[in-house]
Amino acid sequence: MKILIVYAHHEPKSFNAALLERSLKTLSRLGHEVKVSDLHAMNFNPVAGKDDFKARRFPDALQYDREQKYAHTHDAFADDIQAELDKLVWCDFLILQFPLWWFSVPAIMKGWIDRVFVNGVVYGTGRRMDAGGLKGRKAMMTITTGCYPEMVGPDGLLGDLDVNLWHLNSGTLAYAGFKVLAPFTAWSIHYTDHERRTRYLEEYAVRLEQLETAEPMFFHPLADFGSDWRLKPDVAPRTVGQHKKDSLCE
Amino acid sequence: MKILIVYAHHEPKSFNAALLERSLKTLSRLGHEVKVSDLHAMNFNPVAGKDDFKARRFPDALQYDREQKYAHTHDAFADDIQAELDKLVWCDFLILQFPLWWFSVPAIMKGWIDRVFVNGVVYGTGRRMDAGGLKGRKAMMTITTGCYPEMVGPDGLLGDLDVNLWHLNSGTLAYAGFKVLAPFTAWSIHYTDHERRTRYLEEYAVRLEQLETAEPMFFHPLADFGSDWRLKPDVAPRTVGQHKKDSLCE
Repeated sequence: MKILIVYAHHEPKSFNAALLERSLKTLSRLGHEVKVSDLHAMNFNPVAGKDDFKARRFPDALQYDREQKYAHTHDAFADDIQAELDKLVWCDFLILQFPLWWFSVPAIMKGWIDRVFVNGVVYGTGRRMDAGGLKGRKAMMTITTGCYPEMVGPDGLLGDLDVNLWHLNSGTLAYAGFKVLAPFTAWSIHYTDHERRTRYLEEYAVRLEQLETAEPMFFHPLADFGSDWRLKPDVAPRTVGQHKKDSLCE
Repeated sequence: MKILIVYAHHEPKSFNAALLERSLKTLSRLGHEVKVSDLHAMNFNPVAGKDDFKARRFPDALQYDREQKYAHTHDAFADDIQAELDKLVWCDFLILQFPLWWFSVPAIMKGWIDRVFVNGVVYGTGRRMDAGGLKGRKAMMTITTGCYPEMVGPDGLLGDLDVNLWHLNSGTLAYAGFKVLAPFTAWSIHYTDHERRTRYLEEYAVRLEQLETAEPMFFHPLADFGSDWRLKPDVAPRTVGQHKKDSLCE
């Protein structure tokens, strides 16, 4: 497969860097073709703004998503956006690798999403979920955390990990059309010894060997929803994001 | 009250700018003292990095959260971080105002959170949830969306709005110790006419009049959890983030 790894960590001596290095070795051994966007090394600009467009449909006031659509059809994206968009469309499999900060991606990766997941290619005009612009591709997040797994269990202090990540797994990756594999998570890295870190690296290599065969997470397809954007009456909710008031026990 | 508005929009002619202007008028009329961090106008840097610290505990490799803790006790934060941290600690009420991008804050605001919600003040060493570093304060998000409200209803196409926002309302604001009011949401602004926009501005003014009296959202206090970080057996989950396997109907 063609694999794009988007990587956001500020420290080359970090455990994240070790995970990245291990993934490059493993994916190469498996015969995959890999590109890496190392956002800190690239000094990637995460702030969406007027300089993102070489030509504008509405020069008077910046409507960011409308200009994305225009830029795509007029070859008018700033060079850094176009380069990343080319990699994104090129890949069969996207890996987002990052330390979990405030239960989401660090700002530099959020900006990669804001600026590169563009209207007119990734979403818009009916492109979403199983009709998303990147359909046919798969994606996965590789995460290091500060917290312990018990804290983000279903009844944990911080709430279910799947709920914390819903805006990324559903709202970003599945929305864009990706089939999404469950995240690979290395827990509480600050408080993890060398032996456990070594095991994480080995577990990650095993996960990467299963990229093509692993069962994706379930998200409801568009066909499950009525014209009112709600689950059809005969479709039971099967995600942490959807529930029906009248299906509660009490 | 002392109110800090952190504002992230790139366009001074936007509806977001109109909301901000209306809020400043309303809050001033109500006798509040208001500060604004207009992140785009400030050209705020959202990328966490080594230049964020004037002195380091671990100069060899950047461990961001550990250096935050050290910088706080050694007065070593970069000036832009210290200025924002001073405003954050100053305020009684925090408003985060932004357009919802990929079901979260734009990168420039994520970077404000990453860099200003610092270890040793906001969180860390037991500071979290109702023992969070900013306890005694309240917060609210003011959001404009592209989607329609039906899409983020409990059984909507994009999943429950509260699930989409869990990482912000619970994982960021409540985690930091804030009592969190339900977000103010202006829906699908691209497809909204002048009359509806005018009504949104009026509805926002009414919401702002209720900042001191509105009932906050519920999040489980630390006392609801055992030493295993899980809800105690006799505590029923009451949020969209927590559920118990054995409390499901089927």
